Amino acid sequence: MTAPSASPATTPRIALIGLGDIGIGWAALAASRGWTTALFDTDVANADRAVAHVGRRARALVALAHADADTTERGLRQIRLARSLLQAAGDADWIVESVPEDLALKQRTFENIDQVAKPSAIMTSSSSGFPISAIAARIRDQARCAVAHPLTPPELIPLVELVPSKFTSGATTETLHQWLRQLGRIPITLKREIPGNAVGRIAAAVWRECIDLVLAGVIDVDDIDRAVSLGPGLGWAAAGPHLTYHLGAGDGGVTLFLQQLLQSFETWWGSLAQWNKLEPEQVKALTAQIEKAYGAKVDVLRQARDRRLAGILKGMDSARKSQAQ
Amino acid sequence: MTAPSASPATTPRIALIGLGDIGIGWAALAASRGWTTALFDTDVANADRAVAHVGRRARALVALAHADADTTERGLRQIRLARSLLQAAGDADWIVESVPEDLALKQRTFENIDQVAKPSAIMTSSSSGFPISAIAARIRDQARCAVAHPLTPPELIPLVELVPSKFTSGATTETLHQWLRQLGRIPITLKREIPGNAVGRIAAAVWRECIDLVLAGVIDVDDIDRAVSLGPGLGWAAAGPHLTYHLGAGDGGVTLFLQQLLQSFETWWGSLAQWNKLEPEQVKALTAQIEKAYGAKVDVLRQARDRRLAGILKGMDSARKSQAQ
Repeated sequence: MTAPSASPATTPRIALIGLGDIGIGWAALAASRGWTTALFDTDVANADRAVAHVGRRARALVALAHADADTTERGLRQIRLARSLLQAAGDADWIVESVPEDLALKQRTFENIDQVAKPSAIMTSSSSGFPISAIAARIRDQARCAVAHPLTPPELIPLVELVPSKFTSGATTETLHQWLRQLGRIPITLKREIPGNAVGRIAAAVWRECIDLVLAGVIDVDDIDRAVSLGPGLGWAAAGPHLTYHLGAGDGGVTLFLQQLLQSFETWWGSLAQWNKLEPEQVKALTAQIEKAYGAKVDVLRQARDRRLAGILKGMDSARKSQAQ
Repeated sequence: MTAPSASPATTPRIALIGLGDIGIGWAALAASRGWTTALFDTDVANADRAVAHVGRRARALVALAHADADTTERGLRQIRLARSLLQAAGDADWIVESVPEDLALKQRTFENIDQVAKPSAIMTSSSSGFPISAIAARIRDQARCAVAHPLTPPELIPLVELVPSKFTSGATTETLHQWLRQLGRIPITLKREIPGNAVGRIAAAVWRECIDLVLAGVIDVDDIDRAVSLGPGLGWAAAGPHLTYHLGAGDGGVTLFLQQLLQSFETWWGSLAQWNKLEPEQVKALTAQIEKAYGAKVDVLRQARDRRLAGILKGMDSARKSQAQ
């Protein structure tokens, strides 16, 4: 959760293209590190609204002790709201595309960025599922392109999936690692492209089971959410699946665990949901159950979630520190 | 994470049958609440070893501020290591079966317990996947039986899945809820039995994807574990899947989220792993990778995991308290 102890790398000028929830999160992070940040969105009204959100979310990081107040205020003063892609990205070292998850739109955006970016600039996509080899298929120099996929909210969840294509240069990956570390992120690099990256596939697997249980009437939306949070979610936050099972059979490690439980897992694997599509009436039923569980208080729920996230991160940090002593 | 504010319920005499990791965890919890606890395992050497582990793990709860020191010491003094099932379970109000995950063994154990238990006693199985209607199929009064499935370690992860069968009485479920709350657990009740309960299915779905990514050479064991921990695991600990997506599209809630991302999820669902069985050479390869990642330091890793878990729980608790104010 801390910056690397490596030599103080130069700070990139960063340009954030697409100012939805993800772009705003990247901007809040960059500002909280005092970086020089440019923002751009083709929707002018959206761009204007974004600036206030960036300020609020960057200052929330200060309140949570995830960022320094002076640095953050300096970073916020240095934010430039650009009125053209050229103005935003023309002098940037790192251009981050976070437009909606639509392959054609991302491809066009990448082509447009390619027209105005410095030859040395690195270009990443925040895509949760499309490979950079598809997004950047029509641009000149794919060596400087990669997927850098954050989770929601990007300024709180440390993981960033870094997914190079076979065209991405080692120098690009290396530099992105360094910059992401400077932003307090934990980059994990995939060895090759795969639909949904790693996280999207795992999230999709979990959600399919949860939806299946809800639609089959086994459990209500809020109960399965609480069960995941207070059970496996909590466990995985402390130890990933393989480590969990390596520790799951006393001192016998994963070998004993598999002897005892592989048969159970095989039975469960055979009985998991297999559908790949939600019918319109299922979407309707699921939406109704989620809205019944959580109502329309999206803002209040988000603040509560962010407080829990910050609390958990703080707890993990102090556990790591007590461990290091 | 706190006991219910309901009227002070009577404290049950609890008997723990099967003293592996789960049985010891139940015992540590019961002792930490000052309950009168009886332990039994058909393997005498295992039973003898268990007592020391219960003491260590109950005192660890005190060190983590999850239990009161005086109450715990009183509870530990009241532990009785029984030499027969009759001695352990004959006067118990709640008998908890935690023998290995083998249906025939669990059935025999339940029949044997049924021979010695008081007619009023409640009997639960810690099974992660077998339904109580199968485990208790041959006993006389199934109304007093249910699955109460904790996670590992039971004394730290708050969730307990409560899975009644169609024979389980409402009074049994109600009493178990109360007792589990007294143990500081959060019971979530499933509306009907399903293989793997809810948690086993979700865990199986996650592990299958993780194994698939590792065996396909997309990512290493320790990287996917860290990715799950620092990404979706952390996110789910703060908000279950449905709430996460309800908050995932700005103020548009789950309706907007599904408009934007259902298509991506459907693509991913279509490309997820579908296999139901690990071939021996896959088990070998996976085991080798897990052992390479984590070595043989199971004890050290477990202590570190437990410290992280306790830190996360503390962080969640303080976030909830700051929210309530």
